[in-house]
Amino acid sequence: MPESTAGRVREVRVTPILISDPPLLNLQGVHQPATPRTIVEIETESGAVGLGETYGDTDYLTAIRRVAPHLAGADVSRPTALRAVVDEVLGADETAYAEAGTHAAGLRGKRDLAKLKASVFAVFEVACLDAWGRILGVPVHALLGGRVRDRVDYSAYLFYKWAAHPGAGPDEWGGALDPQGVVEQARLFADRYGFGSIKLKGGVFDPDQEIAAVRALRTAFPDTPLRLDPNGAWSAETGERVARELTGVLEYLEDPAAGVGAMARIHQRTGMPLATNMCVTGFDEVPEAFSRNAVQVVLSDHHFWGGLRATLDLAALCRTYGVGVSMHSNTHLGISLAAMTHVAAAVPDLHHACDTHRPWQQEDVVTRPHAFKGGAVEVSDAPGLGIELDTDALADLHRRWSDSDVRDRDDVGAMRAVHPDWTAPRLPRW
Amino acid sequence: MPESTAGRVREVRVTPILISDPPLLNLQGVHQPATPRTIVEIETESGAVGLGETYGDTDYLTAIRRVAPHLAGADVSRPTALRAVVDEVLGADETAYAEAGTHAAGLRGKRDLAKLKASVFAVFEVACLDAWGRILGVPVHALLGGRVRDRVDYSAYLFYKWAAHPGAGPDEWGGALDPQGVVEQARLFADRYGFGSIKLKGGVFDPDQEIAAVRALRTAFPDTPLRLDPNGAWSAETGERVARELTGVLEYLEDPAAGVGAMARIHQRTGMPLATNMCVTGFDEVPEAFSRNAVQVVLSDHHFWGGLRATLDLAALCRTYGVGVSMHSNTHLGISLAAMTHVAAAVPDLHHACDTHRPWQQEDVVTRPHAFKGGAVEVSDAPGLGIELDTDALADLHRRWSDSDVRDRDDVGAMRAVHPDWTAPRLPRW
Ligand SMILES: [Mg+2]
Ligand SMILES: [Mg+2]
Repeated sequence: MPESTAGRVREVRVTPILISDPPLLNLQGVHQPATPRTIVEIETESGAVGLGETYGDTDYLTAIRRVAPHLAGADVSRPTALRAVVDEVLGADETAYAEAGTHAAGLRGKRDLAKLKASVFAVFEVACLDAWGRILGVPVHALLGGRVRDRVDYSAYLFYKWAAHPGAGPDEWGGALDPQGVVEQARLFADRYGFGSIKLKGGVFDPDQEIAAVRALRTAFPDTPLRLDPNGAWSAETGERVARELTGVLEYLEDPAAGVGAMARIHQRTGMPLATNMCVTGFDEVPEAFSRNAVQVVLSDHHFWGGLRATLDLAALCRTYGVGVSMHSNTHLGISLAAMTHVAAAVPDLHHACDTHRPWQQEDVVTRPHAFKGGAVEVSDAPGLGIELDTDALADLHRRWSDSDVRDRDDVGAMRAVHPDWTAPRLPRW
Repeated sequence: MPESTAGRVREVRVTPILISDPPLLNLQGVHQPATPRTIVEIETESGAVGLGETYGDTDYLTAIRRVAPHLAGADVSRPTALRAVVDEVLGADETAYAEAGTHAAGLRGKRDLAKLKASVFAVFEVACLDAWGRILGVPVHALLGGRVRDRVDYSAYLFYKWAAHPGAGPDEWGGALDPQGVVEQARLFADRYGFGSIKLKGGVFDPDQEIAAVRALRTAFPDTPLRLDPNGAWSAETGERVARELTGVLEYLEDPAAGVGAMARIHQRTGMPLATNMCVTGFDEVPEAFSRNAVQVVLSDHHFWGGLRATLDLAALCRTYGVGVSMHSNTHLGISLAAMTHVAAAVPDLHHACDTHRPWQQEDVVTRPHAFKGGAVEVSDAPGLGIELDTDALADLHRRWSDSDVRDRDDVGAMRAVHPDWTAPRLPRW
């Protein structure tokens, strides 16, 4: 049987961009006014173009650019085979990517070569599936077993935030630095998008203040599942205390403390379900964490777990071990949201609303940004990811990148601009 | 986006057949002259027909027939969603399928409703993927992430056997009841098919006789990976002894003893890699077996693990826990072999040749039966499973089923026809 050339990769375009980001606070500091992302376009011999989106930090961008030329001639219908190409090109030198400076990876767990490879593969896999879905005229979810739902629920993702970046005018969301501000932000998100679950990014203030914010949310939204995520800021003792105080209030507590031992202890002593995108962020971390019952909900993220099929693999692992699945998010645009939605649509047992930062972004590189209705994104049955690249927007955001010297997400540095003595906090902070 | 109707299921045809089988010996007895299989055809509104093949025993056939009418109108591009249909139709009554008499399920592990459901789903999933691949013009492996190899290696599957069924003339393979007969059979299989791995089905004779047969194979085939599978016939002590004697001779020892405890003990004391299609045959059995290091190679089998995607799930589990993957086989024809080959082609880390009974079957329901060259089957890039149904052959084999009263595989009963006092052996037998 002669192989079709329609799905052969003719060209891979890698475009770094900068997207604006509000002053969202977290354990490490504050989001910068602009943060980098990488947009990948895979064009096939037939002219189909598949899209992928991922981190734009230097080490990712460098690795993606190294791999891209090696994909010429590859077959978009066989993405699994590209994993070996990525592994080969990026080699086995564990130190090669250790030199990049401080960045936000600390908020999403371990940082090693295996995870970098998984991330690089992921953006190409998504672009291949998009291209191939377009060629076949079928949605990406149908290349993953098909959707089992027609809408994917997302959660409101609340942040403590300043009213404005330093030196800039106030943004449309306003400040949120106390329980009342958090509740107001929640109302804004509920009104605009209809979210039926609410997550608060914590690790910013003293735990008692964050407990108070959660209690205020509970009062304002009596029936809405609530989550709190301090990014591992607390000691096991503090995590245990907060877990006890919020038992029956939270749907789950996310990364109260760093490390398998602390997580296992908090759950064992309190029964609070613990979610994570820090304690378990790669397949190599699964066995120990599961055997010690350190996590009850794994927050999948195709960007670093290794793509859409790897996300299904993770879901199968969780199902087998009786662990729940939900979804993590970093700052992202519509290509990532489309990929998240397609894979979430295909996961049989997704019983929690997924996280998304998307409402915080006012720009996009897709022509018709997704709408959240009733807190959900409709699953597209259009070919591929069901989105179209806005090439003008891409050019604009790339120009912003070219004109700027921001190359890495650096929440610590952004905070230092306001508080010159700020350093990345040592854990546990409380 | 209006949904296409091309992939809608118009009709599901379920056809039981009887296929002839040589007098192959195992722990339970001997293969009957004819054994049942079920062939499923799923026809879509567009006229595409997808094929599936599985067990023909009464409980499977009954369950498949119960589910089939509920698939009308389903979308073949969304097989994952059909799992819920199967679960719903077959209900939650654990006793509903416990009444069928003795059959060969004891040779493939636990027997429960969950496994029955997984098996029923599997045959429909394969038929959906075949139909949908035909509609799209793409091979089934490309619906599973794409092939990572262009040939799938299979193992010679040797059996102790009689020269003929009782009352029948000698078959083409001759008898094999001692080491010399086993070696002759191996030469036949190596010459005809080029197999580069050899498995001997044991549990038939005293372990020392089977050790002698393996040693004779080692002498005759100095560099060929060898396996021995007594189907859990031995005590942990006997298993330990055989494992020690065959250390360095076997690639792996398959199910030396029944149960996680015995398997874990044998491996722990001898270091022999143990494979299984009995100790771990469903996702619910994975955690305990893995945590106790009871198995080092899981023999996947899409027929009872729940389909082709479930096989990829299993492979991901094994990869995560550092357990190897190979593939189990029961008596089957070309539809099953095609499905096995497509999924094996898509498993990234398949480092053992797969089992297949196929060379023992002289009939098929596909127009061009697969050829084993150099011990491998070429991975087809033709649409769907890359096979065509031989409707005349199907009709003939169904007529044989209609004209016969054989409804279940019954190795014990077949042995009793020759040895009237034969009963299913109590384990451990040795
Ligand atoms: Mg988190
Ligand atoms: Mg076996």
